[in-house]
Amino acid sequence: MRATRPRVTAGIGSPSRLVVLGFGGAVLLGTLLLALPVATENGTSAGVVTALFTATSAVCVTGLVVVDTATHWSTFGEIVVLTLIQAGGLGIMTLASLLGLLVARRLGLRLQLTTQTETKSLGLGEVRGVVLRVIAVSLAVEAVIAVVLTARFAARYDMPWGRAVYEGVFHGVSAFNNAGFALYADSMIRYATDPWITVPMMVAITVGGLGFPVLFEIGRRLRGRLGRWTLHARITLFTYAALTAFGVVAITAIEWANPATLGPLGVPGKLLVGAFHGVNPRTAGFNSLDVAQMSPASLLVTDFLMFIGGGSAGTAGGIKVTTFALLAFVIAAEIRGEPSVHVLGRRLSADIQRQALTVALLGVGAVAASTFVLLLITGFPLDAVLFEAISAFGTVGLSTGITASIPAGGQLLLVVLMFLGRLGPITLAAALALRERARRYELPEERPIVG
Amino acid sequence: MRATRPRVTAGIGSPSRLVVLGFGGAVLLGTLLLALPVATENGTSAGVVTALFTATSAVCVTGLVVVDTATHWSTFGEIVVLTLIQAGGLGIMTLASLLGLLVARRLGLRLQLTTQTETKSLGLGEVRGVVLRVIAVSLAVEAVIAVVLTARFAARYDMPWGRAVYEGVFHGVSAFNNAGFALYADSMIRYATDPWITVPMMVAITVGGLGFPVLFEIGRRLRGRLGRWTLHARITLFTYAALTAFGVVAITAIEWANPATLGPLGVPGKLLVGAFHGVNPRTAGFNSLDVAQMSPASLLVTDFLMFIGGGSAGTAGGIKVTTFALLAFVIAAEIRGEPSVHVLGRRLSADIQRQALTVALLGVGAVAASTFVLLLITGFPLDAVLFEAISAFGTVGLSTGITASIPAGGQLLLVVLMFLGRLGPITLAAALALRERARRYELPEERPIVG
Ligand SMILES: [K+]
Ligand SMILES: [K+]
Repeated sequence: MRATRPRVTAGIGSPSRLVVLGFGGAVLLGTLLLALPVATENGTSAGVVTALFTATSAVCVTGLVVVDTATHWSTFGEIVVLTLIQAGGLGIMTLASLLGLLVARRLGLRLQLTTQTETKSLGLGEVRGVVLRVIAVSLAVEAVIAVVLTARFAARYDMPWGRAVYEGVFHGVSAFNNAGFALYADSMIRYATDPWITVPMMVAITVGGLGFPVLFEIGRRLRGRLGRWTLHARITLFTYAALTAFGVVAITAIEWANPATLGPLGVPGKLLVGAFHGVNPRTAGFNSLDVAQMSPASLLVTDFLMFIGGGSAGTAGGIKVTTFALLAFVIAAEIRGEPSVHVLGRRLSADIQRQALTVALLGVGAVAASTFVLLLITGFPLDAVLFEAISAFGTVGLSTGITASIPAGGQLLLVVLMFLGRLGPITLAAALALRERARRYELPEERPIVG
Repeated sequence: MRATRPRVTAGIGSPSRLVVLGFGGAVLLGTLLLALPVATENGTSAGVVTALFTATSAVCVTGLVVVDTATHWSTFGEIVVLTLIQAGGLGIMTLASLLGLLVARRLGLRLQLTTQTETKSLGLGEVRGVVLRVIAVSLAVEAVIAVVLTARFAARYDMPWGRAVYEGVFHGVSAFNNAGFALYADSMIRYATDPWITVPMMVAITVGGLGFPVLFEIGRRLRGRLGRWTLHARITLFTYAALTAFGVVAITAIEWANPATLGPLGVPGKLLVGAFHGVNPRTAGFNSLDVAQMSPASLLVTDFLMFIGGGSAGTAGGIKVTTFALLAFVIAAEIRGEPSVHVLGRRLSADIQRQALTVALLGVGAVAASTFVLLLITGFPLDAVLFEAISAFGTVGLSTGITASIPAGGQLLLVVLMFLGRLGPITLAAALALRERARRYELPEERPIVG
């Protein structure tokens, strides 16, 4: 044991427990508020299951809904949802960043998140620094996007300015936090071919989805400090870009001539909507075409992207791009017969390989078990049910439209799956890493964030 | 490098290449014979795709068919199919056993397959010993099953003795080799509630599916030599039993009241057919109910069992029960925070953990990619297509009935998938293991066969 243990930990596993309690508390408070009669448009309580589902979906920035956000909830209810999204998004970025920093410090590894001199412990000043930076970045990006959306809503769609500001802020916050909640029953279909709406949203989704550690590094570079990129940033940026490109190309190509989706659109429209549906599974969850009408092959591509998700310590869900990339590197090394796994000039320790494996396979297990239960208790076909389970686990929020028709037991299962998908990979990876003790020092080693 | 290298290897990867060439040759020869006009009932050639598909399905002991075996092929054609099954089954058991032995010898580990004094090399006498034992065990089990089936066919179904012997031998060989080919268009549905037919078949499937190394150890014990069980045998027997029990219970329970499957049957019939469908995904592929009528949840359970398959170096396919169990042990160790993975008092080396990961995830990748392509080129729903892809990869042969309707391109993809599923896990694991060089010696270590 080291003499200087990180000051914010009271014991092993404790930071992870703190995260779970914080999110659980936010969900309960949200449920309470949304169950109030004043939260609904018609003035009668939404009921516990609907309130719990919506609160979980908002705090976990998922975006699955069992009632239409705009018509079911009152303005008070909508503001509760928006506040839960903002709290959930800030919470996950802050807590995941701090957990990542704690792991890096404990293991004596490098992770640029603060400007403090690097010590083994994590001081209160640093925690405050991370929290403030996360809030500053979030509000700045959300503000820019909200301004653009507001201007477009007012100028092109003749909304009164008050309404335009409200909808601009709501969708800007929802997009940056990868929350996927929209104030329209058809999500973004009405704006499908308007690049002034969907492009800013794609930008917000991607910035939020890369994760705070990567944003922090990009910010340092933009301010002219040209240190070496960390392994985490390089893997995240490369894998995120590659998966997005794959999603955009695959979905645009598959749906190109589908008369119920991209078929009727002109080429610019096809490209814009295809891009939106390549970006949104990572894991924002807005849709600008009818997901239920997509071809089964597109749904499978979307499943794949939703399960992997985005970058660590950001607003995206899923097992995270680093987890996926690390497993690919392990397999490549194994096939090439290399005893150690080297990535971009760095060596991956055996324990992080096992952690990536654990996060990924437990994710597969959670999705498979949930799909099995949902098949048992609903009459929906496999493609719709699997899509729903991965969407909940990956905190995506896309749906083939079955969410509201799933019986209460199944909706509660989705609640558990959203919570597990939001916090499981992060806290599991951190708990696993914080518990590691004995380590060998061989080659220069770097540790991307897993989960 | 060691001075005494195994004599049967000409170079690294070479034994695996030999296996692939041998199976490829058998498939080509079978295709040639089945494309002859004399092979069909109506005397015109079946065509290259159908001949290739059937030959691959037989050699890889899969059992997927694009034409009905009994009515499409002449007796000559049926005997070609039966011969290919027997050659494929013997081939896979022999070659996988020898590869396993080669790996164990090279690494200085223990694997009881011969009675020779254990040396680092693999002599011609030992190879002959393994081959003869595999043949002896196969023919003995097949003979016993064939006798029981023949007696029942003659006594209960009034078949002439010649016909009863022919059908008894055919289904005995097909069952022991986990081939799943039947001489009836409805597979075993007509015998669904006859325990004198289905129970012997389940016994044959299980004996063949455990794998030769486990059978060899059981045989030693039956002859009174009570040495310690190897880790491989203990993991295989436990996991095989646990998965079979899960399959039987889950499928019987889910289908219990389904009017299109178990519903109309009495309790003994339900239990018998349920047991048959818990055993057959491991990976024999006979069916005694209409698979297309099974509930989606049962299909998912079957997918799970088919992907994992049976024991190594046997007639079952899939990624193998040891691969699955090893990954479960790795995850359990990771969650408990243990730096080493211990299984039943032995330690698993890091390289075998990585091999299990590689075999399993490449399997997932092959199935996912094939499912994607089949969704693109057919109009079938995800559950049917995923089932078909896993059935081909796991060399199972169960189908929801779409095989014959898949376009030629898709059938050729299934041919590749059957070949890959039959040889991929085995040769990949052996090639990976044979290439390992540097190893640390810490605790007593044992190495189950992966793939
Ligand atoms: K989302
Ligand atoms: K089979």
